[in-house]
Amino acid sequence: MIVLFTDFGVTRLYTGQVKAVFARNARGVPVVDLLDDVPAYRIQGAAYLLAALAEAFPPGTVFFSVVDPGVGGARLPVVVRAQRQWFVGPDNGLFDLVLRRSERPRAWRITWTPPRLSATFHGRDLFAPVAAALAQGRAVPGVECDVGALRRPEWPDDLAEVIYVDGYGNAITGLRPAALPAGAGLSVDGIRILRARTFSDVPQGTFLCYENANGLIEIAANQGRAANALALEPGSAVVIEQV
Amino acid sequence: MIVLFTDFGVTRLYTGQVKAVFARNARGVPVVDLLDDVPAYRIQGAAYLLAALAEAFPPGTVFFSVVDPGVGGARLPVVVRAQRQWFVGPDNGLFDLVLRRSERPRAWRITWTPPRLSATFHGRDLFAPVAAALAQGRAVPGVECDVGALRRPEWPDDLAEVIYVDGYGNAITGLRPAALPAGAGLSVDGIRILRARTFSDVPQGTFLCYENANGLIEIAANQGRAANALALEPGSAVVIEQV
Amino acid sequence: MIVLFTDFGVTRLYTGQVKAVFARNARGVPVVDLLDDVPAYRIQGAAYLLAALAEAFPPGTVFFSVVDPGVGGARLPVVVRAQRQWFVGPDNGLFDLVLRRSERPRAWRITWTPPRLSATFHGRDLFAPVAAALAQGRAVPGVECDVGALRRPEWPDDLAEVIYVDGYGNAITGLRPAALPAGAGLSVDGIRILRARTFSDVPQGTFLCYENANGLIEIAANQGRAANALALEPGSAVVIEQV
Repeated sequence: MIVLFTDFGVTRLYTGQVKAVFARNARGVPVVDLLDDVPAYRIQGAAYLLAALAEAFPPGTVFFSVVDPGVGGARLPVVVRAQRQWFVGPDNGLFDLVLRRSERPRAWRITWTPPRLSATFHGRDLFAPVAAALAQGRAVPGVECDVGALRRPEWPDDLAEVIYVDGYGNAITGLRPAALPAGAGLSVDGIRILRARTFSDVPQGTFLCYENANGLIEIAANQGRAANALALEPGSAVVIEQV
Repeated sequence: MIVLFTDFGVTRLYTGQVKAVFARNARGVPVVDLLDDVPAYRIQGAAYLLAALAEAFPPGTVFFSVVDPGVGGARLPVVVRAQRQWFVGPDNGLFDLVLRRSERPRAWRITWTPPRLSATFHGRDLFAPVAAALAQGRAVPGVECDVGALRRPEWPDDLAEVIYVDGYGNAITGLRPAALPAGAGLSVDGIRILRARTFSDVPQGTFLCYENANGLIEIAANQGRAANALALEPGSAVVIEQV
Repeated sequence: MIVLFTDFGVTRLYTGQVKAVFARNARGVPVVDLLDDVPAYRIQGAAYLLAALAEAFPPGTVFFSVVDPGVGGARLPVVVRAQRQWFVGPDNGLFDLVLRRSERPRAWRITWTPPRLSATFHGRDLFAPVAAALAQGRAVPGVECDVGALRRPEWPDDLAEVIYVDGYGNAITGLRPAALPAGAGLSVDGIRILRARTFSDVPQGTFLCYENANGLIEIAANQGRAANALALEPGSAVVIEQV
């Protein structure tokens, strides 16, 4: 299975061109759009989101992972193997959390270059053909390198920030449940947000935080739009509220 | 065919995870995203929309129907069989119009529980595997119950409200053409909207109402955005204008 | 391969119904959503966009091309064959640039009519079944006509206007690189925008114009939203800035 994780936007223009490559080069392989509105250019938040989302996918999944503001510049194209999954994309820190949470990850610099490489759309021209090749069981078209040679920013294990706001106005943070002491909730601008299990555990309109279905702490309001009410957007800080 | 009808939002985050389940559990079955921006939490409007949209699909279609503000709470997961189609989702009234317009519908409470059930994403963890099983011709993993035991709100047969605004700014109502006397149009806040057949039947910018391609009365402006001009949104009342 | 190019909007409501037709009538044929948010009703810009995007697709591709404000009115449904690709849609000028840039294009008026034809959704009822038939190698269900008999507006070979704004806020114009003298850039409301190769060639936040991955001149800001900063939207004029 090939999974798309990008900041290309909900318009299909770029995702569509990438999927056309898969339709030709990886015919018969299931292709799933997982996320196409990763907040644009926000590599750090994307790294936490990718690591959390990847967990539920089976071994062998190929993540076409493109959040790549430096496209066409000096950053290198890489392939990472972690938890028996493949990750294809730019070496800009995007894979840092995946690497950190994996045992014995491996990495390759992509050395193959396509016959036609645009300056601004390596997703279509370079990463998609490589992802298609991996999904079909072919070897990585590159040279293996030390994982330590990849860009490894000094980021915390859990990120006390909003990393994504979904269609309901729920705000996903980069915190895993273990980062919160038992019973602890969050606070945002001094507003306390209690921990709960699901939306209907609290009265309609009330804020809550909970472990979401991807193992991240998320802020919502029961049948309301928490991100709007609390002015949360990608990058907004949240505070762990000790009990 | 599996058809997705949800309020998950145009972002692919949740739809993508559900489609990954189908890619694994119902490989080879066509999967169609029919609607992923049903107005969030609006079960009543969704019920009229689902009943209208389902008509054009062939027997055997499995509707993955998830508008589920009570997820993780007391509402029950159900399967409905109506018009030789399957509907999988929460028992919260969403299937009321489908049931009402069907001869001899049947219903089951889902008793199967997945090995891992998140508190907030039964779409992925529970409804998707059940929909996949039905699409492959397997038996309903539940116990049949009386249709009357499902939640059956006291809603009218046709709903004089906007239930969806599309990308052109056209406003779909819950009214079927038979709910309007011959020649009758609508009015919104005192503004009369004449009945027509298609956009180009009226001058550019003029409002019209017409039977849309899914058998519902819809309000548009020829090459304009009627919903914006008339301040229509899901839940806005419309009035049948007698001739 | 069937490629969708429409102004149906990012909501899946109309695209979904069309894809359901393909799932039934062209089973096994890859279907790619290329663009579903062509600016609504803007036939001219869409014509330049379609011609540019089609180039990268293989011979035999069937473009389901529906930007059709006159649906249900007098405009005729047509099939065009150009560059060994198929284009199915309304005869309203949408195919003008494709025709102009092709050697020996051919055209047909669609004479087949479906058993049920709605007044407002010929995309689903008429164009989709025809596209499905072509994708399966069947004959055009229509009569060949002279290409000159199609609607051929008097548009320039390159269009000095914004024709699309993408999810990053980059503004795509209808100009090809050859329309700019060597070294020339663009200007917008007197602001000069220098030519570059890719985003990271200029400082963060700086405007640039460049040949995009589809062979059109595009305006961006490195990690910024150029369209917002410059108030660019579909139809905004740009000026070629002589060196």
